[in-house]
Amino acid sequence: MTACLYALRNNKKVLLLEREAIGGQIAKSPKVENYPTRKVVSGAELSDQMFEQILELGVDFELEEVKGIEKVDGIFNVTTDYNIHQAKSVVVATGAKPRMLGIENEEKLLGKGVYYCAICDGPFYAGKEVTLIGDANSALQYALMLAGYCKKVHLMTLFDGFFGEKSLQDAVRKTANIEIMHNVKATSFKGDEHLESIIFQKKDGSVFEHKTEAVFVAIGQVPDNKAFEKMAEIDKQGYLVSSEACKTQTLGLFVAGDCRTKEIRQVATAVSDGAIAATNACKYLDKIGVN
Amino acid sequence: MTACLYALRNNKKVLLLEREAIGGQIAKSPKVENYPTRKVVSGAELSDQMFEQILELGVDFELEEVKGIEKVDGIFNVTTDYNIHQAKSVVVATGAKPRMLGIENEEKLLGKGVYYCAICDGPFYAGKEVTLIGDANSALQYALMLAGYCKKVHLMTLFDGFFGEKSLQDAVRKTANIEIMHNVKATSFKGDEHLESIIFQKKDGSVFEHKTEAVFVAIGQVPDNKAFEKMAEIDKQGYLVSSEACKTQTLGLFVAGDCRTKEIRQVATAVSDGAIAATNACKYLDKIGVN
Repeated sequence: MTACLYALRNNKKVLLLEREAIGGQIAKSPKVENYPTRKVVSGAELSDQMFEQILELGVDFELEEVKGIEKVDGIFNVTTDYNIHQAKSVVVATGAKPRMLGIENEEKLLGKGVYYCAICDGPFYAGKEVTLIGDANSALQYALMLAGYCKKVHLMTLFDGFFGEKSLQDAVRKTANIEIMHNVKATSFKGDEHLESIIFQKKDGSVFEHKTEAVFVAIGQVPDNKAFEKMAEIDKQGYLVSSEACKTQTLGLFVAGDCRTKEIRQVATAVSDGAIAATNACKYLDKIGVN
Repeated sequence: MTACLYALRNNKKVLLLEREAIGGQIAKSPKVENYPTRKVVSGAELSDQMFEQILELGVDFELEEVKGIEKVDGIFNVTTDYNIHQAKSVVVATGAKPRMLGIENEEKLLGKGVYYCAICDGPFYAGKEVTLIGDANSALQYALMLAGYCKKVHLMTLFDGFFGEKSLQDAVRKTANIEIMHNVKATSFKGDEHLESIIFQKKDGSVFEHKTEAVFVAIGQVPDNKAFEKMAEIDKQGYLVSSEACKTQTLGLFVAGDCRTKEIRQVATAVSDGAIAATNACKYLDKIGVN
């Protein structure tokens, strides 16, 4: 939506295609406290305000899913489930979803004790005990971060070790209030209005109930960029490869937000990509003579 | 301030040092329409809201000017005009100022017809005639951009040509509503409440008055990073060299916003840097065992 904002203010005709619901991941966050200028706001409200801002500037909007894209004679043909749209430049901002465990009550308790972003939601549990599931770099970083302000972090891994950087592993093992439990597999979440406990299974098949009011699941993110694989490089994790300039190897095709290779995936960093991608798209259009 | 926000939410102790006034450049913008979620807001209001947000989270704040910085035994000593502060990690976010012409009434009419960022303020003059002063890439890009929605763009240059990319020069010359005038030097702005005209001097010494209600001065930006030159690489233009990760070659020293080498300088891209720099600073602190 920030890409729309910048392109619209640059007097370009903009069509926004959205598959599901405006805002993506953030729209599902009940409480956002790290969007600069807003002490506390719901993700839905943030999304709505961004949408209203671009509606007022005259964005065209269609609820359609992009299935494929090709560039013929300098024009992009964007195929959706209903139409083929033509454009001289395209910004891909498909986001990413946290990888879920796929266990009982996970969907139901999402945002109610079950979280995927410790940077975003960890601070709501300052001074409390929390649980963290994961074994690679982000899980280790989250563990250290949470340990800084939570009473205790229960770090649960599926296998008998970690897969992250050695220095992070060392730092985690040295931190007194991180309690590590290896070889445990979460099989279900328990709780009605809010998470109350997690059922884990051990290697020998035995199960136990772990009481906790918050769990951070850090087992990776899932981007969805298949529709663009012929036009832009995609890395092993599925992200569209791009630098801060938000360009791809296809002239006129730009990427913004969680869907691309980047440092940190936050609303504050996604809006930056939107501004950069759209400004570079406008420069491209101005250069080829589209006004 | 976004770096403070992210570091504070990460439970770090944060001291914000500011030389002049909170918010920097943006605080002087009377009208901001490109900050995502805000249809229209003053730059001062944006700054105030960011400041309130971090005050509530417990930021320490001092109005002091940083004069120098050194790192001894893993500790940064930050020397200001009043104190020496110690820190385990530092984020430099000194911003940049637009280079001014330094002519009569320029300060007085700033934001009242005299602008430095066409991306930010150009759209307020859609459908109208505007003037642009400059001869390098950003001036050429601004000219094309403004030509897209302004009635006419008067592009004035000091010498008899442009210094930007050939393709941009060609695009500018081909655009019907860009009127180029070379070899003219702005000597003063006229107007009481708002810009009314600009006095230009020709090569032969003769002067003329050019009526216009808006001028965009695009003659470069001036960062101010001298205090950090021993700790971080600075490019020819004076920007601190860094990638999107906002790191410098000094471990623990990070950079954010307009002061660093970057794609596009906007509030939306500065907040991203703040989030990234602080998150990476926190990771650094967690790794060396500061909680």
